[in-house]
Amino acid sequence: MFVLKIGGSAGIDYDLIADDIARLTQEGQQMIVVHGGSALTNEVATALGHPPQFVTSVSGFSSRRTDRRTIEIFEMVYCGQMNKGLVEKLQARGVNAIGLSGLDGRLWEGKRKSVIKIVEKGRRRVIRNDYTGKVEKVNTALLNTLLLAGYLPLLTPPAISYESEAINVDGDRAAAATAIAMEADTLVILSNVPGLLKNFPDESSLIRHIPAQKLDTFMDVAQDRMKKKVMGAQEALAGGLKRIIFADGRVENPIQRALAGEGTVIEVSAGF
Amino acid sequence: MFVLKIGGSAGIDYDLIADDIARLTQEGQQMIVVHGGSALTNEVATALGHPPQFVTSVSGFSSRRTDRRTIEIFEMVYCGQMNKGLVEKLQARGVNAIGLSGLDGRLWEGKRKSVIKIVEKGRRRVIRNDYTGKVEKVNTALLNTLLLAGYLPLLTPPAISYESEAINVDGDRAAAATAIAMEADTLVILSNVPGLLKNFPDESSLIRHIPAQKLDTFMDVAQDRMKKKVMGAQEALAGGLKRIIFADGRVENPIQRALAGEGTVIEVSAGF
Repeated sequence: MFVLKIGGSAGIDYDLIADDIARLTQEGQQMIVVHGGSALTNEVATALGHPPQFVTSVSGFSSRRTDRRTIEIFEMVYCGQMNKGLVEKLQARGVNAIGLSGLDGRLWEGKRKSVIKIVEKGRRRVIRNDYTGKVEKVNTALLNTLLLAGYLPLLTPPAISYESEAINVDGDRAAAATAIAMEADTLVILSNVPGLLKNFPDESSLIRHIPAQKLDTFMDVAQDRMKKKVMGAQEALAGGLKRIIFADGRVENPIQRALAGEGTVIEVSAGF
Repeated sequence: MFVLKIGGSAGIDYDLIADDIARLTQEGQQMIVVHGGSALTNEVATALGHPPQFVTSVSGFSSRRTDRRTIEIFEMVYCGQMNKGLVEKLQARGVNAIGLSGLDGRLWEGKRKSVIKIVEKGRRRVIRNDYTGKVEKVNTALLNTLLLAGYLPLLTPPAISYESEAINVDGDRAAAATAIAMEADTLVILSNVPGLLKNFPDESSLIRHIPAQKLDTFMDVAQDRMKKKVMGAQEALAGGLKRIIFADGRVENPIQRALAGEGTVIEVSAGF
């Protein structure tokens, strides 16, 4: 069993990915799919007069400023258009997909950050009405029930807080939490780059292999959105996963290529 | 077991309805909930520059003109904001709700109308690129799996065509199909009126009781959106349901009141 994360950035080819999921499931491969929707959320939020804002945490990570109106727009895009569009693509290819958010059946539960500390124009600031958090509990019973009944679970943020509020969580890290909880052997993360690049955005500088125990030293190499993917990989390794692959979501057979070792393969080697 | 349909018109109080669902499920009452999202879809479609259009069929029913862009907006609102907003409200009240569309696991499958025949300014016209249809098959195995595991299924259009396209289906009739397939004893339909009104919109003209065998004669009384509710009730009766209740979704304890007989009760009487 493996977990597949499909990014939400521009350029990712969802038809090619759906083709590949169909091929793999026909071969009997079991998987859980997690997807994003960031680029489309930015478009819709702008069209609805509530343009996206991004903040940088004091630890240097960028994230979406998520007020209550943003959560609604986020749900429209992630749980509505993106999730149902992907379910439709998969059903059309004979894959019996079921789309769920982290709210449904408390699939992804976690703590809402009561305050977030950001840096704005070099100054520290505290934001209190943000709806973000981190997945701490995965409803594996629900996922196992669906898998056993022959469905492919297609999961998307938001998650649910312990106080039952919808919270924006990072999709890569939610996928890592899911892979750990389900004891998956591999986590494949498809985005609009071929993997971790030594000199971003030079795609020829792809780093092909990272031994698990050396991943920490690559955090500084990761730029922009790749930072959270590396963090997700660190969490996945800490949780017992043996292999994480960052690969290209713009090509044919993207999942099969990733599983065959194309992209950046982060692996626990035999001795560890 | 009963099926509850919550309308999508302005005025319906979703907090009061969620309170009542929580009370009933705490008492051990099992139910499946279906919801709409029409009013909010109109707002969002207008804000996104694709304002809603309604067409009147040659048989006199009004329905939403549903091109492919409308399906996307429809999914944003019904499956995104509305469905997840309601899941959140229910989870906050201790109800373990799972929101699904008719696409998920092919929950609601049916035929897409390849052409729709409409009347426009007194003239007949044919529309070919519409994505509408009717639920003909309900995935009862999936619903039973979720109910057995202790979840409350919260269902919403669109449905899925046999060719795996998302199709707009009427929520009242989808609820009726669900009630029939699940062999529910009662279908409760909450909207922003107290029930079927003899002189619409005069709320004091509520029709309190309709024997099942006389329902046909009330089709002419039904105005506007109530027409499809009456049609849903006819289909539910034809499918073996014993009781359909049209009731007010704007009041406290709306479901308990409906089940106690407030609203318009359409019933198969003892002799039939």
